[in-house]
Amino acid sequence: MLAATGHGLEAYGGSVAYRGVGPIAGAAAGAVAVLVRSVGGADFRLPHTGETEYATGVMKIPAAAVTAEDAELLKALTSEGPVTMRLILTPQRLPDAESYNVIADWKGTEHPEQVVVVSGHLDSWDLGTGAIDDGAGVVVSMQALQLLKELGIHPRRTVRMIAWMSEEEGSEGARAYMKEHGAEMGNHVGAIESDLGADHPTGIYFAGKPGLGQWLRPLAEVLGANGAGQLVATPETGEDIGGMTRQGVPSFAPVQDSRFYFNYHHTAADTFDKVDRKHLNENAAIMAVLAYALADSTEPAGR
Amino acid sequence: MLAATGHGLEAYGGSVAYRGVGPIAGAAAGAVAVLVRSVGGADFRLPHTGETEYATGVMKIPAAAVTAEDAELLKALTSEGPVTMRLILTPQRLPDAESYNVIADWKGTEHPEQVVVVSGHLDSWDLGTGAIDDGAGVVVSMQALQLLKELGIHPRRTVRMIAWMSEEEGSEGARAYMKEHGAEMGNHVGAIESDLGADHPTGIYFAGKPGLGQWLRPLAEVLGANGAGQLVATPETGEDIGGMTRQGVPSFAPVQDSRFYFNYHHTAADTFDKVDRKHLNENAAIMAVLAYALADSTEPAGR
Repeated sequence: MLAATGHGLEAYGGSVAYRGVGPIAGAAAGAVAVLVRSVGGADFRLPHTGETEYATGVMKIPAAAVTAEDAELLKALTSEGPVTMRLILTPQRLPDAESYNVIADWKGTEHPEQVVVVSGHLDSWDLGTGAIDDGAGVVVSMQALQLLKELGIHPRRTVRMIAWMSEEEGSEGARAYMKEHGAEMGNHVGAIESDLGADHPTGIYFAGKPGLGQWLRPLAEVLGANGAGQLVATPETGEDIGGMTRQGVPSFAPVQDSRFYFNYHHTAADTFDKVDRKHLNENAAIMAVLAYALADSTEPAGR
Repeated sequence: MLAATGHGLEAYGGSVAYRGVGPIAGAAAGAVAVLVRSVGGADFRLPHTGETEYATGVMKIPAAAVTAEDAELLKALTSEGPVTMRLILTPQRLPDAESYNVIADWKGTEHPEQVVVVSGHLDSWDLGTGAIDDGAGVVVSMQALQLLKELGIHPRRTVRMIAWMSEEEGSEGARAYMKEHGAEMGNHVGAIESDLGADHPTGIYFAGKPGLGQWLRPLAEVLGANGAGQLVATPETGEDIGGMTRQGVPSFAPVQDSRFYFNYHHTAADTFDKVDRKHLNENAAIMAVLAYALADSTEPAGR
């Protein structure tokens, strides 16, 4: 998940902290458990879940998600007097198991050692099927590469498609990548991640040096003709490419309409029917154009 | 539930038959069980349930609701080959138990024996709390009577508030009422039921003799000034007042915006937060105006 600006993003960014550090703050205040109101926008009695955090030295108390409706009911009941609840929570933390990032390189014609990453993440939160978080991002990345191939555009630099593993648990796959490829960051000329669903895109989020917006200007003009010319500077473009961003690699993400994303993401309703093929193709087009510019321009994006 | 025209109503009316007679049609075709796709409009992985029917002489096979998303998944899987499912269904049919309609009379000043019914139903389908189906209808009926009292308008005829019991199982409460009061139908000058949620109303559904629309015309003019002047003839105004309608009693219901009703009704998401106080008051105003006209006009509505 991004922590940038935008319609739904802003609301989510402002409220997700209550879920994240809820168990820590609750324990510190003497709570025996915490119930976190759904952070999403849906009013369909849908528990909205996600990462909750514990801290060293603070008691690990049980934490659970309750729907917006049930949170309202609890509020009404507690306003009338003490409420006793019996919680039956079934989740368990299993030991880590081996899993993999999936990586495909299309070698560059001139500078195969220089890399542009197009990516989404392979894992998903467990209630739904992860169609929009982030199956869509993986498909968009595959499609961006496929588009360039179909168009017969073979760029000078390598385009690397990465389907990240284990983003939801704290970007474990990205961490492993940085461990293995950290020394090659100087050759990573750009990284793109799509992890904000599969809705209509209007432009590009970017993170990097001040000159980066200037470098993107001609691209925005091309994309603007199709209504996707928005350029939005942000500190974070994507969880999995955050490590590269911090190493100075220019990073990017499609700006998507996020009004509805948080109604579905991390709920049982994140299913394939939520993906609109037209919007998916629009996102792939943006990623392909951006990947091509990064991989083929004589002057790489400033870092 | 109404079986009349309208936005969501039309869609529901056209598809609910698959749920209702699904078990009969399935058994007749040799099925061992039926799974019925949610008839509602929500795409939030929400099972939408309701009455399913069995017929004499046709085997009673298990029937269950599946969400729209899971129905799509089953469709995709079955298109690839045979699918085996193991169903664990827990519902059971318990013996009937005693329960009651709740009835309050405000006696008329001149013709206390003549009755105008204002009503909603007290029971609800079991997944949610029944706030919009039909807690709202009960509250609107109580409020209509209350409004007349507050305004100091004491009509010539009796206004009878009825909270019907057991509408969802087949209008058992209404059936009991007709058994007890069937002989008094000549003195029932009109019956209103609100059972289409708690959304913005735009007028009045009516069922009766051809002249009834004409009789309503002055009322529609008054309500029209507030945007609720629509008059819609329909064969059925409400399940619980259907018996009265068939006995020739002019019957009515507020015309409500039904675009969203079927996203929530008969699901776990039919909860109090779905009720908008302003819309609730609008419905109460329509019912109060209509009840007053029926209970106080020198010339009663034609029958």
